[in-house]
Amino acid sequence: MRCEIITIGDEILIGQIVDTNSAWMAVELNKVGVDVVQITSISDQKGHILKALNEASTRAELVLITGGLGPTKDDVTKVCLCEFLNCKLVFNEEQFAVVERIFKSFGRTVSDINRKQAEVPEASVCLVNSQGTAPGMWFEKNNTVYVSMPGVPYEMKHLMQSQVLPRIHERFAMPVILHRTFCTQGVGESLLASWIEDWENNLPEHIKLAYLPSTGMVRLRLSARGTDENQLNLELKSLGDSLYAQIGKHIYAEGEKTLPEVIQEIMIARKSSLGTAESCTGGAIAAMLTAIPGASAYFQGSTVTYSNTLKMKVLGVSENSLKTFGAVSEAVVREMAEGLRKLYGVDYSISVSGIAGPDGGSEEKPVGTVWIGIGTPQGTFAKQFRFSTDRGRNIQMASLSALNYLRRILLGIED
Amino acid sequence: MRCEIITIGDEILIGQIVDTNSAWMAVELNKVGVDVVQITSISDQKGHILKALNEASTRAELVLITGGLGPTKDDVTKVCLCEFLNCKLVFNEEQFAVVERIFKSFGRTVSDINRKQAEVPEASVCLVNSQGTAPGMWFEKNNTVYVSMPGVPYEMKHLMQSQVLPRIHERFAMPVILHRTFCTQGVGESLLASWIEDWENNLPEHIKLAYLPSTGMVRLRLSARGTDENQLNLELKSLGDSLYAQIGKHIYAEGEKTLPEVIQEIMIARKSSLGTAESCTGGAIAAMLTAIPGASAYFQGSTVTYSNTLKMKVLGVSENSLKTFGAVSEAVVREMAEGLRKLYGVDYSISVSGIAGPDGGSEEKPVGTVWIGIGTPQGTFAKQFRFSTDRGRNIQMASLSALNYLRRILLGIED
Repeated sequence: MRCEIITIGDEILIGQIVDTNSAWMAVELNKVGVDVVQITSISDQKGHILKALNEASTRAELVLITGGLGPTKDDVTKVCLCEFLNCKLVFNEEQFAVVERIFKSFGRTVSDINRKQAEVPEASVCLVNSQGTAPGMWFEKNNTVYVSMPGVPYEMKHLMQSQVLPRIHERFAMPVILHRTFCTQGVGESLLASWIEDWENNLPEHIKLAYLPSTGMVRLRLSARGTDENQLNLELKSLGDSLYAQIGKHIYAEGEKTLPEVIQEIMIARKSSLGTAESCTGGAIAAMLTAIPGASAYFQGSTVTYSNTLKMKVLGVSENSLKTFGAVSEAVVREMAEGLRKLYGVDYSISVSGIAGPDGGSEEKPVGTVWIGIGTPQGTFAKQFRFSTDRGRNIQMASLSALNYLRRILLGIED
Repeated sequence: MRCEIITIGDEILIGQIVDTNSAWMAVELNKVGVDVVQITSISDQKGHILKALNEASTRAELVLITGGLGPTKDDVTKVCLCEFLNCKLVFNEEQFAVVERIFKSFGRTVSDINRKQAEVPEASVCLVNSQGTAPGMWFEKNNTVYVSMPGVPYEMKHLMQSQVLPRIHERFAMPVILHRTFCTQGVGESLLASWIEDWENNLPEHIKLAYLPSTGMVRLRLSARGTDENQLNLELKSLGDSLYAQIGKHIYAEGEKTLPEVIQEIMIARKSSLGTAESCTGGAIAAMLTAIPGASAYFQGSTVTYSNTLKMKVLGVSENSLKTFGAVSEAVVREMAEGLRKLYGVDYSISVSGIAGPDGGSEEKPVGTVWIGIGTPQGTFAKQFRFSTDRGRNIQMASLSALNYLRRILLGIED
């Protein structure tokens, strides 16, 4: 079943806010087998809204609309819906009770403008919004179902989960659609594609593969569609098994899991502790790890030593290594990893030294050259990487590569 | 002049990727006087792409397309463009040189799949992409200008800035639009609005004010539209002067400058050095500062001490302070700031200790409570902040607030 999402509001068209609602809705709709065929962001103008509502019905049986329901003048959606449905606005007691409760909680009384928030087109079903003043609306025209919701993310999410998704299930006959996503790090999209070309060419018609690349990572998503959930699950399992047989060592997780989350799980399961000694990543690895709630259960801390002086003074890197091999070298990241393990008393350490750019490169060590060290109770590992010419990408790729290098050492996965 | 943005790719429609490209493009287009009238996200299917290209020409004179240009099978955009333009693909030597260079830097040779990356429709102008393998394409049909670009954000941004925006200026008659953006930190949108209400109400008709809020910051953008550049500049200068008179101490920069860039400028100008001692921000401040090229000229390093043990062992925080006041306290951030200055031998230090959440809060110190210390040659400063209940927001707001606190101390700006 096909769905179009329409977001109404100039704030998206002028780039003032990024439309995160649509991505969230798309994920929830996909889970239940609804295909989002188009996402359309339009302005608050009546003519534009009416045109979009009509065009959407040529592409979809379900049209979800967010935004344009605030009390101020630039929000004209409800007026448009009345024109679209050829009906008038009617007052909804139940929504008004919510409006009154919300205003009371702020110690205010409801003004005339806000009283209008509780009105909905007569030809719609009012989806009472318990989290805000603007109700949702469910209506049909020419066999297309339309749902209008407020644009405030937590209000929209609450309405979707409590009312809209259950109603979709009642109203439509839904297919079964299952996804399986494999997260890889450190291998480019085209190299991956060349490795699994035969496997990909032999996928059955009802199972699709998508490559989802981002800096330093590629996610591979299989989507299976049918009627028999058990059968689809078996197919995805078998396809997953053969994918693991080919590129398993590059898959660090399935689904939405991130590398910092994977590291956290392994570390906590093993009751191990970790610290980082960072130079060119400048604290980015520590920041990634500590962005995850619960990181304090294993992450002890980090030392960012940008200067050679501090590498020596704080981490005990030898002047000789710095002079002989330079700060970006195997010897130095080994000494950083070992120094950090000793200083912080941690089981594992990550060390990074590289040339992030844009300056500082040489013929021998161009921008993007990064040495990564991993200190462990069994000894220290080190490896050289070559990333890009962009500082931000180099920091991101070095951080992810360091985490993945640690993961592979922890799990005993060879290069 | 009206523009539609079309993003191609199932990854947006199934919600695995949030479309941040469109917001960025909308901001850049707005700056030069192009109105984005619609943003349309569609799937990788040929029929859908062709329909979207045709429909967009009914709404806009300029259509910017991103995505769908990767080397793998799910990317069909270029084939569609050939059908749309009724022409064949031709090989572009200049783009192929880039493809070869990129592959060579990874020590690889170009496969047949990747050789195709350098092909463009014969009826298009190839916009050579120096940052990636997929070129941009500029073409016209029925007086509508279309531009296709890769969806990888930094490649798209580079193409937009280096080639697409200059070409838009050449091709269309554009109005004169001047912007002046004032960046503030630490004051909410509605409080700012109440302070400058009279000033805002007295803006002339052709000068608009926009509030651009993001986590911990609000930017105020004045946009003046007309024909006489000198006159508009004079008006913006005078309006800026009166804005500074009212809220000047909250403005840390103009334009796109970030707080880390402002700190870097001040530090380098004064030949001062800086280090950070971070707990709840987990290295985020160091990562923000070192993301800026040239940070090594003043930034020496950082210590992330997540555990109390390391706060004592590495930074010399007293056990007594930790026991008496807790890790999130004035005494502890003062000792962290002073300990770091001594340990790293830096002129200035930032220290942060707080409760990022979601757990760890108490009645007295709820989640979002953060103490920030600033060590200086003239003594140590400390201040308590109260942010939100969200971990990510708390880390971001604490980082920005710490940088702004340092800035105000450096410049002698009172609270």
